[in-house]
Amino acid sequence: MLYFDHNATTPLADCARDAWLRIQAENWHNPSSPTRAAARARIRLESYHEAVAVLLGGDPTQYVFNSGATEGAHAVLAHWAKQLPPHARIAVSATEHACVLAAAGHYFPKRIDWLPHESGGLLTPASIQTAISAGAAGIVVMAANNESGVLQPWSEIATVCQCAAVPYLCDATQWLGKLPGAGLGSINAWIIASGHKFGAPKGVGLIKLPRSEPDFQKPSGGPQQNGHRAGTEDLAGIAAFTAALTQAEQKKVIWESQRLSWRDNFENSLINSLQGTQIIAKERERLWNTSLIIAPRGNQTQWVSKLDKLGALISTGSACTTAQNGPSHVLAALGLQAECAQRSLRISSGWQTSEQDWRDLLETFHKANLTIN
Amino acid sequence: MLYFDHNATTPLADCARDAWLRIQAENWHNPSSPTRAAARARIRLESYHEAVAVLLGGDPTQYVFNSGATEGAHAVLAHWAKQLPPHARIAVSATEHACVLAAAGHYFPKRIDWLPHESGGLLTPASIQTAISAGAAGIVVMAANNESGVLQPWSEIATVCQCAAVPYLCDATQWLGKLPGAGLGSINAWIIASGHKFGAPKGVGLIKLPRSEPDFQKPSGGPQQNGHRAGTEDLAGIAAFTAALTQAEQKKVIWESQRLSWRDNFENSLINSLQGTQIIAKERERLWNTSLIIAPRGNQTQWVSKLDKLGALISTGSACTTAQNGPSHVLAALGLQAECAQRSLRISSGWQTSEQDWRDLLETFHKANLTIN
Repeated sequence: MLYFDHNATTPLADCARDAWLRIQAENWHNPSSPTRAAARARIRLESYHEAVAVLLGGDPTQYVFNSGATEGAHAVLAHWAKQLPPHARIAVSATEHACVLAAAGHYFPKRIDWLPHESGGLLTPASIQTAISAGAAGIVVMAANNESGVLQPWSEIATVCQCAAVPYLCDATQWLGKLPGAGLGSINAWIIASGHKFGAPKGVGLIKLPRSEPDFQKPSGGPQQNGHRAGTEDLAGIAAFTAALTQAEQKKVIWESQRLSWRDNFENSLINSLQGTQIIAKERERLWNTSLIIAPRGNQTQWVSKLDKLGALISTGSACTTAQNGPSHVLAALGLQAECAQRSLRISSGWQTSEQDWRDLLETFHKANLTIN
Repeated sequence: MLYFDHNATTPLADCARDAWLRIQAENWHNPSSPTRAAARARIRLESYHEAVAVLLGGDPTQYVFNSGATEGAHAVLAHWAKQLPPHARIAVSATEHACVLAAAGHYFPKRIDWLPHESGGLLTPASIQTAISAGAAGIVVMAANNESGVLQPWSEIATVCQCAAVPYLCDATQWLGKLPGAGLGSINAWIIASGHKFGAPKGVGLIKLPRSEPDFQKPSGGPQQNGHRAGTEDLAGIAAFTAALTQAEQKKVIWESQRLSWRDNFENSLINSLQGTQIIAKERERLWNTSLIIAPRGNQTQWVSKLDKLGALISTGSACTTAQNGPSHVLAALGLQAECAQRSLRISSGWQTSEQDWRDLLETFHKANLTIN
């Protein structure tokens, strides 16, 4: 099977499974209980906060483990809504993930300004500065787009926001585990992410607070994680998250440029051999694993289905919006005509994907093409 | 090791581990992706909704899997706050879990009436009727108390609420997996629960909606679970939850009365052999696994620590409030003096606990007693 849908989810990494099983066998106790076994679980929990802070930067206490980026987006924007003045507006990139857009709409109804972008959906630090000058009291820009793979200049955006003392929410769900996370933890931003995008189990994610935020989510239940996320900690899931992230960070150093060239070779071969094929935001810096393709003919459902039967699993776009009618909001924001958007296909590889897999995918595209009307 | 802290958390059940590993190996795909592998994951997900509905009653679409009871309490009470009139008050039992109290305080600030209770914290349907007549627009009463084990007449309370068309939130976290769940799903109530109290992994729980609630948590992100809970579904965790619940339900039929007699024998022997020992709510119907004890002397930290060193793991009370100063809010609500509450000890067994374990615990209490001043 050629699995090219890693931006939707990834298989569980062996190291994540091992970590999960070890904790379930040895440290399954409730970290809040008053026994020594519970104290050992608490120490383990602290060690995962520390490990993530070493990988990403910042202080261990700035990290809050939760159930994933959807919970994270809601928690951060709920906090902003409480902290900012009642009529404050926030400026949001139109290509954010559906869960971020939904949370923004929920907590800032009719108080959202859309950030203007360059071609390919790229945001510039200057556009952020303009939005802040126009009165935006919060900025929401993801690190890497889930459909196009386009990378945003999050470090520069964080600096602009910090100078203006405006909070910045950066959804790093697609960045984390694919590109170096170092620095994400040090910038003055609210970071959210999900572990299942890089080999951790589903249902585990994190928030990084920009600094000490004693009021964040307090009181919302029990005092777990400094009161920042109530509920018995899923220590096994957190251990698996940390193991998978550590492994992914190691791979990046060695493998990133090689993997980028495999993806680029695939894109160039496809354009040359399948006339009329377009790659969205090809001119932009993108994730090494992602191609958002406009097929020359047919529609996305046909392509996905044909490729599936031929053994290649790809997607039409964001899995979270697959069931919706009409083109993805990302493509609409990029100004793509609905007719074009209906031919969009998202391909996203993983660390396990080989050069041969990319060649096989190309061949499978050609086979599928023969059967598309 | 004598583990008597099952109300805090339970070790992972073998069947839950097997189910988790199977899904991680076979059905790890994102259920929202457009491929056939994803369709298989979706069908699995539906099968777990169906399995839970068969066990507990109601319709599969009424069940929403989430990260646990803390998330559940917040989601339900946020929904009530949105649906009920702006000045509506809710009536809440003072012995609810900390996460329910925190969520109630958050969404209904200064709009909470405390329900009066009988000795042992028992709520009567008549008291619910009185609260509703006095204007309560929502009722919050748990199924079984996490510290004392006292059972509430949730079925009768649900009937009173249904007749008055007032919503009822029933936290079944300590009931589910210990006593028959059949009926919980059929009553007209909002039910919340956490899987790690009966052998499922931490980080998985559920909400049962009282009926079709199209507006519940919509839109909050992706359209997962009919839009009722956005975020990629933790299918492996849900499979493990369902396996553990199924197994626990089977055990209950056969083992409950036997286990109750072991607990009662322990309590009676302890009272007889350790003069001055009290059992909280001994006269009430309680969970078969729970004893809330007031030791005749010493304080709870001494007892827990001595017992721990002698190989018996018990708790001072709710794990979620262990770190707090002062007596537990449950004991305070029961009218216990602070001096007494400082000698409270919670003992909670599991399905794996044997009669010999209870005898060994009794002996360990006697050994510990020799060293308590």
